[in-house]
Amino acid sequence: MSYNLPAVAAGLVAAQQADSLDPVAHYRDQFVIVDPNIVYFDGNSLGRMPKQTAAHLHHVIHTEWSDGLIRGWGRGWYEAPARIGDKIGQLLGAAPGQVLACDSTSVNLYKLVMAALQARPDRTDIVSDALNFPSDLYIMQGAIAHYGNRHQLRLVASRDNELTVTPDDLYALITPQTAVVVLSHVTFKSGFIYDMQAITQKAHAVGALVIWDLSHSAGAVPMALDAWQVDMVVGCGYKFLNGGPGAPAFLYINKSIQDQVESPIWGWFGQKAPFAFDLQYEPAPGLARFLAGTPPMLSLSAVESAVDMLNQVGMPAIRAKSVAITEYMIALFDAHLVDLGFTLGSPRDAGIRGSHVSIRHPLGYQINQALIAEMQVIPDFREPDNLRLGLSPLTTSFAEVWHGVDRIRHAVSQGLHHKYPATRAAVT
Amino acid sequence: MSYNLPAVAAGLVAAQQADSLDPVAHYRDQFVIVDPNIVYFDGNSLGRMPKQTAAHLHHVIHTEWSDGLIRGWGRGWYEAPARIGDKIGQLLGAAPGQVLACDSTSVNLYKLVMAALQARPDRTDIVSDALNFPSDLYIMQGAIAHYGNRHQLRLVASRDNELTVTPDDLYALITPQTAVVVLSHVTFKSGFIYDMQAITQKAHAVGALVIWDLSHSAGAVPMALDAWQVDMVVGCGYKFLNGGPGAPAFLYINKSIQDQVESPIWGWFGQKAPFAFDLQYEPAPGLARFLAGTPPMLSLSAVESAVDMLNQVGMPAIRAKSVAITEYMIALFDAHLVDLGFTLGSPRDAGIRGSHVSIRHPLGYQINQALIAEMQVIPDFREPDNLRLGLSPLTTSFAEVWHGVDRIRHAVSQGLHHKYPATRAAVT
Repeated sequence: MSYNLPAVAAGLVAAQQADSLDPVAHYRDQFVIVDPNIVYFDGNSLGRMPKQTAAHLHHVIHTEWSDGLIRGWGRGWYEAPARIGDKIGQLLGAAPGQVLACDSTSVNLYKLVMAALQARPDRTDIVSDALNFPSDLYIMQGAIAHYGNRHQLRLVASRDNELTVTPDDLYALITPQTAVVVLSHVTFKSGFIYDMQAITQKAHAVGALVIWDLSHSAGAVPMALDAWQVDMVVGCGYKFLNGGPGAPAFLYINKSIQDQVESPIWGWFGQKAPFAFDLQYEPAPGLARFLAGTPPMLSLSAVESAVDMLNQVGMPAIRAKSVAITEYMIALFDAHLVDLGFTLGSPRDAGIRGSHVSIRHPLGYQINQALIAEMQVIPDFREPDNLRLGLSPLTTSFAEVWHGVDRIRHAVSQGLHHKYPATRAAVT
Repeated sequence: MSYNLPAVAAGLVAAQQADSLDPVAHYRDQFVIVDPNIVYFDGNSLGRMPKQTAAHLHHVIHTEWSDGLIRGWGRGWYEAPARIGDKIGQLLGAAPGQVLACDSTSVNLYKLVMAALQARPDRTDIVSDALNFPSDLYIMQGAIAHYGNRHQLRLVASRDNELTVTPDDLYALITPQTAVVVLSHVTFKSGFIYDMQAITQKAHAVGALVIWDLSHSAGAVPMALDAWQVDMVVGCGYKFLNGGPGAPAFLYINKSIQDQVESPIWGWFGQKAPFAFDLQYEPAPGLARFLAGTPPMLSLSAVESAVDMLNQVGMPAIRAKSVAITEYMIALFDAHLVDLGFTLGSPRDAGIRGSHVSIRHPLGYQINQALIAEMQVIPDFREPDNLRLGLSPLTTSFAEVWHGVDRIRHAVSQGLHHKYPATRAAVT
């Protein structure tokens, strides 16, 4: 599947024409879009709601819970973490039995980092990068504190102002002392895609494990976890998986190591026989031991219907659209935003770029506020100067990108942002 | 508020009359009851859905998520764990700023047990009981394994076949070696209520901490966490709080010790400034450090509307109804079930009995199946022989209790249970 990019010089008309030719454009109608005038560049923070999710939630609320009551656990709820996990796995190149939909990304990462350090008891290093989502670093720092500060967190730095990481810089840190390499597949600021396969091989070559955080790639960037022999991953349910606000996350553990790792949280859903009520914990064989408590079924159900839709489309079509629409964004950026003091905060090479484009500006925080308050554009601001423009393959149209850039240009050229505070708010 | 119990000899008519006089009977109409012929004795496993929850969820799905999109975090989602926590706290005798609604009971208990052991580094014992929900014991066993098996789990046994625990037996285990006492306020099989205040005092007298699991008491049994100087609690959102299947749980940490304990899971919602994206974790001051990842807002929202209703009723009225309806259940049990081979699996003294009544029978597992399959009665089976009859103060009517006992008598006297397997299913 390939796209002809709209000619920038031809403006909105060309964008609209590209939409009319887009083979996945009709999926946009499968989502609830309350106000079509809003340019939504934050599907990578909270994806839009599929219409079938609304219908499915209605069923869960009014039939499964209200009518089925406790019987719901025997009618599909109990299997939901594994069933939905398998469906997510389909997007990730993971055969069934290796993915669970459960808990939050933080809690899942905690389980896996703790498990990895336990599985490599004589090693001292966790390797990550300074581009990682800080929360992931916090989890690692907590795990290190927890094991008595016997480990060190070795962070590779970026040489190009947080845009990418030079592979050799990373490889230099991966040594026989490395217990685990923990990286985000797609970095949250620049959208840089790591070479998951190559780095996994480098880690394995020295006997280290890898944990990939797929929060910004699951549902947007194709991968092949099984073929690449990845050990473990975590990922987020509410970004490109469109699972709703704070949707349960997921984790993957390669079948080959499932019996070698153990969750630190010995929960009853991870017990061998949860309803035998034995007083002594015995972990379930395989993957299930990484479940903890009872899953939040309303939120979890919303993940399932969204992932069903993504599987229907398939990752190749999703990626083709993602590449086309980020390419178009960058073409518009070059034509309309560079002269306003913006610089590109994402790789130009689509091969190493996920589904968002960051644009940087010294007054980015103020511009972000002006866009939301006055221009009906919703981006995301990320310190220190990134306006992160998330382009969700199934819901962002070429016309929306055109309008977005047009409005950003308007706001900045008119100086609308100058009246907004430069101080960072505690919550954005 | 006091109830005149229906005369057992006067049968269904008396029960119906009691309903007509019940000051909280009208709340039953505030819940969705799809099939009124079902006798639902499992509100202590999964509470029914309040009608206002359906309306609230509709708003969350169609307005907050679909229309508000990412802006929802600035419109109340971000504060939800603390806001809803405070509302739960109102049911528990906890002033604001001490309760968070988040994660699952297992994950919350894990955080607190780990924190307690860290806060009492020189002590070796965790004291609990053999009546505890096994999952709670698993969490403690996991924490012990995690700290290198330096601790022992000391379990007090029941002298009366899992009905109660003799206080002196428990107190004998609470010594200067005790790091933390971890007990369920109401035991999950018999419904026995521990003396939370006295045990907390005993623990404090030797410098130990206490963690209470309120899963079977929150929303059913009054308590005064602040006045009793309780250290920490966890509890479940989907039982008497009616928060929906797998609803997020809660935790309480007394203000006086909030800065002395630390969560093992260093998540971004527990970081001092989550959106500053500093690379180094610094815990938020006070309670918030016990948050981990992003909360599942659909499931969490369902908790809020249900708890709002409970606060409107108030714990004294809820408890009065709970006592009356469990007393009535036991009176019917004495009259109609004892001669069929049942024994009472709950305390007769209402002062030490929560809101469920367990009845025991050697063929309990088979009887449970017959009731569900043929009698439209939904109890809960708990090994080895407990039929657990949960009486939810706001949704269980006296007439429902009468019908339930009548149908149990019918099923057993007709021998309907004999055709069901005696083997325990993996999932019930």
